[in-house]
Amino acid sequence: MPSLKTFIESRRFEAAITVLIIINAITLGLETSGRAMAAFGPLLMIVDQAILGVFVAELLARLAVYRQSFFRDPWRIFDLVVVGIALVPATAGLSVLRALRILRVLRLVSMVPSLRRVVGGLISALPGMGSIMLLLGLVYYVFAVMATKLFGASFPDWFGTIGLSAYSLFQIMTLESWSMGIVRPVMEVYPLAWLFFIPFIVSTTFTVLNLFIGIIVSAMQAEHDAEASAERTALQAEQETILNEIRALREEVRALGPKGKVSAAGSASKASATGPGSST
Amino acid sequence: MPSLKTFIESRRFEAAITVLIIINAITLGLETSGRAMAAFGPLLMIVDQAILGVFVAELLARLAVYRQSFFRDPWRIFDLVVVGIALVPATAGLSVLRALRILRVLRLVSMVPSLRRVVGGLISALPGMGSIMLLLGLVYYVFAVMATKLFGASFPDWFGTIGLSAYSLFQIMTLESWSMGIVRPVMEVYPLAWLFFIPFIVSTTFTVLNLFIGIIVSAMQAEHDAEASAERTALQAEQETILNEIRALREEVRALGPKGKVSAAGSASKASATGPGSST
Amino acid sequence: MPSLKTFIESRRFEAAITVLIIINAITLGLETSGRAMAAFGPLLMIVDQAILGVFVAELLARLAVYRQSFFRDPWRIFDLVVVGIALVPATAGLSVLRALRILRVLRLVSMVPSLRRVVGGLISALPGMGSIMLLLGLVYYVFAVMATKLFGASFPDWFGTIGLSAYSLFQIMTLESWSMGIVRPVMEVYPLAWLFFIPFIVSTTFTVLNLFIGIIVSAMQAEHDAEASAERTALQAEQETILNEIRALREEVRALGPKGKVSAAGSASKASATGPGSST
Amino acid sequence: MPSLKTFIESRRFEAAITVLIIINAITLGLETSGRAMAAFGPLLMIVDQAILGVFVAELLARLAVYRQSFFRDPWRIFDLVVVGIALVPATAGLSVLRALRILRVLRLVSMVPSLRRVVGGLISALPGMGSIMLLLGLVYYVFAVMATKLFGASFPDWFGTIGLSAYSLFQIMTLESWSMGIVRPVMEVYPLAWLFFIPFIVSTTFTVLNLFIGIIVSAMQAEHDAEASAERTALQAEQETILNEIRALREEVRALGPKGKVSAAGSASKASATGPGSST
Repeated sequence: MPSLKTFIESRRFEAAITVLIIINAITLGLETSGRAMAAFGPLLMIVDQAILGVFVAELLARLAVYRQSFFRDPWRIFDLVVVGIALVPATAGLSVLRALRILRVLRLVSMVPSLRRVVGGLISALPGMGSIMLLLGLVYYVFAVMATKLFGASFPDWFGTIGLSAYSLFQIMTLESWSMGIVRPVMEVYPLAWLFFIPFIVSTTFTVLNLFIGIIVSAMQAEHDAEASAERTALQAEQETILNEIRALREEVRALGPKGKVSAAGSASKASATGPGSST
Repeated sequence: MPSLKTFIESRRFEAAITVLIIINAITLGLETSGRAMAAFGPLLMIVDQAILGVFVAELLARLAVYRQSFFRDPWRIFDLVVVGIALVPATAGLSVLRALRILRVLRLVSMVPSLRRVVGGLISALPGMGSIMLLLGLVYYVFAVMATKLFGASFPDWFGTIGLSAYSLFQIMTLESWSMGIVRPVMEVYPLAWLFFIPFIVSTTFTVLNLFIGIIVSAMQAEHDAEASAERTALQAEQETILNEIRALREEVRALGPKGKVSAAGSASKASATGPGSST
Repeated sequence: MPSLKTFIESRRFEAAITVLIIINAITLGLETSGRAMAAFGPLLMIVDQAILGVFVAELLARLAVYRQSFFRDPWRIFDLVVVGIALVPATAGLSVLRALRILRVLRLVSMVPSLRRVVGGLISALPGMGSIMLLLGLVYYVFAVMATKLFGASFPDWFGTIGLSAYSLFQIMTLESWSMGIVRPVMEVYPLAWLFFIPFIVSTTFTVLNLFIGIIVSAMQAEHDAEASAERTALQAEQETILNEIRALREEVRALGPKGKVSAAGSASKASATGPGSST
Repeated sequence: MPSLKTFIESRRFEAAITVLIIINAITLGLETSGRAMAAFGPLLMIVDQAILGVFVAELLARLAVYRQSFFRDPWRIFDLVVVGIALVPATAGLSVLRALRILRVLRLVSMVPSLRRVVGGLISALPGMGSIMLLLGLVYYVFAVMATKLFGASFPDWFGTIGLSAYSLFQIMTLESWSMGIVRPVMEVYPLAWLFFIPFIVSTTFTVLNLFIGIIVSAMQAEHDAEASAERTALQAEQETILNEIRALREEVRALGPKGKVSAAGSASKASATGPGSST
């Protein structure tokens, strides 16, 4: 289907889809307003359904055109998931799915190249953080188990299970109400609790800051590498020119010597000691 | 009007205006003090009116001198706006305009070159943040719509409308009372609410930090580029000198050869094999 | 014992220990859950005891193989301590030791090379922070003594002793509830208390930020040094080649002169004035 | 007084003073403990007085030795002030002076070279922050005046005067309880108050972060400059050597020409076209 491929890859089609996403963002936003719903609720619903229909048709067209290679582009899978959410029948128990329909607006990221680059950049920073994230996860798990064992009995709301402890420790790591809200009350029961929490705060904060320092350094490194190699290349090209000039000059000087071939046979570092005067 | 132009561009005039801005800053500050107003309120009012008069005259003079080009300098437009605010009749409903008169003091930024540079630097960092700001805005909108749909019914004060949700999410992003103040109460109604808020916190904090990392890297890049190019220039100038010396030397060596012209005709890489010995 | 050494250094053995650590992490985690303990508590205990037995045997084997050199690797001492904790009889007063058994899971850091590198990197950043940490400690001590003397009588819970003051100042440095929770109440008794707390916040925040700036700069420095020296080496190698070519050329030019030896005896900067023309 | 100068500049004397400062730090710390004061309060007082006496004698000796130049070293003036505080008669109204005696411990900074360097480094970062600090001060003043005018009547505790407003804005800038504690209550009276506070938070946070970015960049710049200039110097020295070799070589080549003087008179770029062949 070359004509369909040309159509869905055309700039106009992409622009039309982008406009539809923005319109859909507005209608989905208006649906949260009771007044807007009272005034023209049915219209909003119709527009939403119509745009959803266009999106489904668009994705089916892309699937028909690209077939297997459709699933190789993670952005296409992302599109499929956020559009597909709206097609799941929203029963009472899954009313949260209705709220997730707004995720469809994030398709804008896959349509606008500059947003795509920014998100790509953010995601590309993740792999370098793998080891440090794993370490952070390990430290979290160890502290969560310890907090549950140590404080779980007295403070079941905060440290009753590993899950509650992990949430409370995340709150403490963000420094939100860590002292007035959590640690001071805990210290009233366990006066030495600061020996647990202050090392936790210092070590996780230090680790997270090192995580970001690592990202800064590697980002700067990448920028610098590209530039420094360009600089080095320019200087080396010039050095190459100088070297070639000198070598050509040596050839000429050798040619000045008696018969030329004799001195040309001499090695570079040990020039022949016999000058032109000795040959005459 | 060359004499008027000379006058308003003179150092003395600029210094006088700067002094008047500082005096006005003090009088506007004193107006907030009940005691100062009781003691010499009318005097403060007169000084304020007089300084405002001078500023209006100054801006009219600048308008007369620069005409269209007046509006090309964004600082002049800024001056016009902050002075113009005081001229709007402050009716009861617009009493906030009276408070905005203090913005006039920000004219100091446009008068003092070092402050102008700092603000210029801050503003010049903004365009590079465009895409990431747009992304952040999109993420905010999506999360605000979702929060309104999910939690709006139970927590109308925090998530009743998109606007309230956006404000609450901004508060959560700054980590202020996010857990004790907002998320723990929400989790009492919706126990899985952390699945919404923790990804929001992690993703927006990570994005904002990357925003600043980007600014750091590009600021450093700009500094480094300037310096590296100066360094490269110095080394290349020296290489140029070396190359010129070598080329002059080759000329001289060629001149040493038989008749000179023959070897000079030889190419650089393939020097003529006939030396002076062969000519004798 | 070469066979034992080969065995404990084999990849399979390391992998087996790693798997046991992960299993132990899960069983220790499950022990915090009342439901899991009710269902298969005795089994968890047996698994935990069995894994502890393997760890003890492993460490004894390592001790037997490496003897004194065992204690030279800080990771081995770390292993010894975290495994040893479980062997201390946990009496009622030391029930905290039971909670510390989970630290055994941190052995994962010493077993997985990438985690080891990350922790090594974090620890290697510490020595460069020595002076600034000492300064921060000194500032803390001075402010803690002052706070105790100034506010201890009126606010014994926050500033009653140096220890309480240090804890409160740490909370204030992390900016947690510093104003609403601590400083505003203090200012109701001592209206000038902000003269104590705001300088403390500004100076410690500034110092801590400089600490991290120092780490960023030195991390970047290390990266840059390695790269710059590689770059410099490449350029210098090329310069060396150029210089050798020129020197060889000079040798050859001297050889062109009458008898060769005469001009070769002349110094580099003052070439002999006698040319081939003078010899004929 | 050469012998006195030798004495007070000796390592032993410096070490003795350092030890005395540390002892004094401990005694001043113990004075805050009721139990320690009950047990050996008089002893602590005597030790404190004795050490104060030594410090006074030391400073008088330094004054006698260095005379005018004493006041040129800011660390000496710092020593004079922190020791001098203890000599001011502490009347009831000035009991705060007794608390300031602990500042004497900061003399450790002026005695230990590594601490001195760190503090010197922190202080040297300040001048580069001048303009941005001035800008921040200006923005603070403008916002404080506006807040007082807008919210002072309804919230006299937070925004009653410019001073109270500045304190509250500082708290808001540190993000401490800004929303739950201050802005939400204010918004109940003035629903549009977020139009004032959110721009304030964004602009001051952005400015402060740029302040630190500036410090990072200039610190890195300083490091890099030193290193890059060393690198450049090494490369330029090598280039110098190459250039000298080439010039010496040209001298020698000229000497090979007929009579030497003729071609030596030729300019560098335009070598004489007459070769040795033409002279014969």
